[in-house]
Amino acid sequence: MLSMKGLFIGRFQPFHNGHLEAIRFALKQVEILWIVIGSAQRSHEQRNPFTAGERLSMIRDTLLNTEIDPRRWYAIPLYDATHHYIWSRELDMLVPEYDVVFTNDPITTILFKEIGKEVIGVELKDRDNLSGTEIRRRIASNEEWRHLVSKETAMIIDKKSDRLRVIL
Amino acid sequence: MLSMKGLFIGRFQPFHNGHLEAIRFALKQVEILWIVIGSAQRSHEQRNPFTAGERLSMIRDTLLNTEIDPRRWYAIPLYDATHHYIWSRELDMLVPEYDVVFTNDPITTILFKEIGKEVIGVELKDRDNLSGTEIRRRIASNEEWRHLVSKETAMIIDKKSDRLRVIL
Amino acid sequence: MLSMKGLFIGRFQPFHNGHLEAIRFALKQVEILWIVIGSAQRSHEQRNPFTAGERLSMIRDTLLNTEIDPRRWYAIPLYDATHHYIWSRELDMLVPEYDVVFTNDPITTILFKEIGKEVIGVELKDRDNLSGTEIRRRIASNEEWRHLVSKETAMIIDKKSDRLRVIL
Amino acid sequence: MLSMKGLFIGRFQPFHNGHLEAIRFALKQVEILWIVIGSAQRSHEQRNPFTAGERLSMIRDTLLNTEIDPRRWYAIPLYDATHHYIWSRELDMLVPEYDVVFTNDPITTILFKEIGKEVIGVELKDRDNLSGTEIRRRIASNEEWRHLVSKETAMIIDKKSDRLRVIL
Amino acid sequence: MLSMKGLFIGRFQPFHNGHLEAIRFALKQVEILWIVIGSAQRSHEQRNPFTAGERLSMIRDTLLNTEIDPRRWYAIPLYDATHHYIWSRELDMLVPEYDVVFTNDPITTILFKEIGKEVIGVELKDRDNLSGTEIRRRIASNEEWRHLVSKETAMIIDKKSDRLRVIL
Amino acid sequence: MLSMKGLFIGRFQPFHNGHLEAIRFALKQVEILWIVIGSAQRSHEQRNPFTAGERLSMIRDTLLNTEIDPRRWYAIPLYDATHHYIWSRELDMLVPEYDVVFTNDPITTILFKEIGKEVIGVELKDRDNLSGTEIRRRIASNEEWRHLVSKETAMIIDKKSDRLRVIL
Repeated sequence: MLSMKGLFIGRFQPFHNGHLEAIRFALKQVEILWIVIGSAQRSHEQRNPFTAGERLSMIRDTLLNTEIDPRRWYAIPLYDATHHYIWSRELDMLVPEYDVVFTNDPITTILFKEIGKEVIGVELKDRDNLSGTEIRRRIASNEEWRHLVSKETAMIIDKKSDRLRVIL
Repeated sequence: MLSMKGLFIGRFQPFHNGHLEAIRFALKQVEILWIVIGSAQRSHEQRNPFTAGERLSMIRDTLLNTEIDPRRWYAIPLYDATHHYIWSRELDMLVPEYDVVFTNDPITTILFKEIGKEVIGVELKDRDNLSGTEIRRRIASNEEWRHLVSKETAMIIDKKSDRLRVIL
Repeated sequence: MLSMKGLFIGRFQPFHNGHLEAIRFALKQVEILWIVIGSAQRSHEQRNPFTAGERLSMIRDTLLNTEIDPRRWYAIPLYDATHHYIWSRELDMLVPEYDVVFTNDPITTILFKEIGKEVIGVELKDRDNLSGTEIRRRIASNEEWRHLVSKETAMIIDKKSDRLRVIL
Repeated sequence: MLSMKGLFIGRFQPFHNGHLEAIRFALKQVEILWIVIGSAQRSHEQRNPFTAGERLSMIRDTLLNTEIDPRRWYAIPLYDATHHYIWSRELDMLVPEYDVVFTNDPITTILFKEIGKEVIGVELKDRDNLSGTEIRRRIASNEEWRHLVSKETAMIIDKKSDRLRVIL
Repeated sequence: MLSMKGLFIGRFQPFHNGHLEAIRFALKQVEILWIVIGSAQRSHEQRNPFTAGERLSMIRDTLLNTEIDPRRWYAIPLYDATHHYIWSRELDMLVPEYDVVFTNDPITTILFKEIGKEVIGVELKDRDNLSGTEIRRRIASNEEWRHLVSKETAMIIDKKSDRLRVIL
Repeated sequence: MLSMKGLFIGRFQPFHNGHLEAIRFALKQVEILWIVIGSAQRSHEQRNPFTAGERLSMIRDTLLNTEIDPRRWYAIPLYDATHHYIWSRELDMLVPEYDVVFTNDPITTILFKEIGKEVIGVELKDRDNLSGTEIRRRIASNEEWRHLVSKETAMIIDKKSDRLRVIL
């Protein structure tokens, strides 16, 4: 299976250690992983504070500072489509070929299954703390959040503290 | 200047040796180069035969087989905006920070200058042969084109020969 | 009045016996009824599980198996417009001429009245059970729903049971 | 093969006898034919004078006055997609299931072949006269055109003569 | 500072005396005030009952009947952008040059600050009564509302009473 | 007729003396003239060098320096619609009520006539020189153009000379 290519989809608001574990999990099963940055057009709102460019920096800066071979992953921003049914096709246009999709989202799962793709659920550890919603909540209420993300992600979050104070 | 980040924009229909030289030229002047795959939504037409995913594969497969450090470049697909004036802002949303833009296109130049960005012209060698238009013409008329692109790009072009026969 | 043409608008998620009765009601008053399948771009979500093509099949398969003359109705899918005010104009572009609109929706009523169209309220029987919301609820909770739709609609619903299990 | 369903795509500006022959040709090979009215959003321009609603009326009025069973065809308007690659997916959303596509257009052919659909070329008789371009030219220059369309189509064209005088 | 130009943004559903006071407040500080009618594409819904044209009439009719010099203000309708980040750029395209933004909205504030604009908070008097939400509530429940708007605005509201009865 | 309201539509690339004469012509027949700045989303291209904000400044600065009462005209930017048929409806949404349309464009004329509006042709003087196309040509080739526009328009054109040198 290591000659296969996989797809991993997230909003990464922000990119956190749970995402990093999911990427390690997927890279045990596929040779190359396309990381799709979903809702790429969204930013500056409570559920989506960061731009796609900022999220791409979080992913890239973090992964380049791990032991993971930079030839084995690639992150690609993707806008929401106007409707669900079109979205998976728009993804096929922007992303190189892939064999399998890593996701736990039920609608994403059914959309890919209806076009004949294999879908693999992702093991998520410590889901209570390792979620974007929880991390955004902690930033907003000045609770500890730095241990949940990489130091590279933390640096980008810190640079945007003016915005986060208003939006979160 | 080597701590700066640059932007290089193209349609890459297909990615050819002129683009590769331009990337080497830019990387002498900046530390990191964001390569923007423009008109990402276009494919299956005479001037734009390849999807963004196929063009990303050409760029990535080619560059990973050069001596260029994979930490120094990153290619990002970008849709055309509905109007010129909005396009450079949409780019800022999808691409991490940059200091300088490498382009020879006059409208792109004026758009970036009006928002205060530095623009550097790109040296283009052998422009008569090293252009997407010329390479598409050669493919269409069964003339020699393989020496104008990398072997990785040639492999992707070959896989799409059914489409090219119809569209070019 | 039987030489007039009417318009009947619904989302048909799914098409049920209440819709069928409304069509019979309208066809007592107009010669031809244009059935507009609204929110045609929506599918694969809780309130809109079926694609426009699936909804068109429900309507067409059902009506062709009634005594109603196939020359007296025609169903046409219509996307939501970006804004209410534009929607009725977009409808006029896609639908042949009509004289009267059958609807109970207050906003649809006021939009058509402001452009000078006659609007007729539709008698709805057994609204508690004969509604898309109720039928989707029953499918989701494995309660009886088959007596509320035609056997043709039921067949299409059954074919999509994998999707409905996830989405409803 | 008569249990199969087919797809026939055209702009129908206007619907003419060549289209009618193509429909008879297709109906020898499939049980049901979905007739897709392409570029449905276009009207009031030289190459696309008629609205989708007017074109639907031409097709419906004409076919209901032939011997062809109204259960064996159905015409559905379809907007252009923002990009080719998305268009065939948008079609799948709006149109019920189909097995084979009737078209002579090379780009449409390659798009459907790339997603694994069978494509059958359509026999076109007297292509010099039986084309939308030629019929629009004849209307504009007051040459004979009525023998090239059905009497139902001619009636709709006549009703729009004010518009055609300006636009063609 | 009186040679400066300012920007004042609102939805004006409807335009009321609080808006008028804010305009007087801003005109003490700038020479010319561009009044941006936001969400210009919205109408015929509970939170946005009036079209942009109706809102422009409210503003124009009211201001032309004050002592304020008509050379010192200008109202311009602006659609919502598909995403926040693009919106301020779309505004720059439609509105003449400005130096300072009058707003109390936190997201608008952060968006303008991130592109380097000065933002001034607006003094709002009697916010409990002088808000669009409160005025729409009063219209809906037949409570007194006329003292909260100009007589010119009241006249336009009265003309749309059929619509308001349905929508509010 | 002086209690009527009129509509005058143009692209104003740039606003010139021919437009000014047309406005005087229209204001002899109507009390108030809504001046619609068409293709408002276009700028930075050969046929549309100026943004809507720049064009609005040309119109406003020019008219405020004439004898024309500022209460008798109002300029409103309008985007192109995705299709002709929708455009006149989008206009009705953004512009206050009007009774008559001043235009010479045949398609605009037929679109307004089909929805029952009166259309009046505009007397154009010296059409050879007083056209946007001709003025843009003169600017590009360094020929005399200042006598064809107001001094206020000339000032705005001069400020954008860097852009015009590239784009025209």
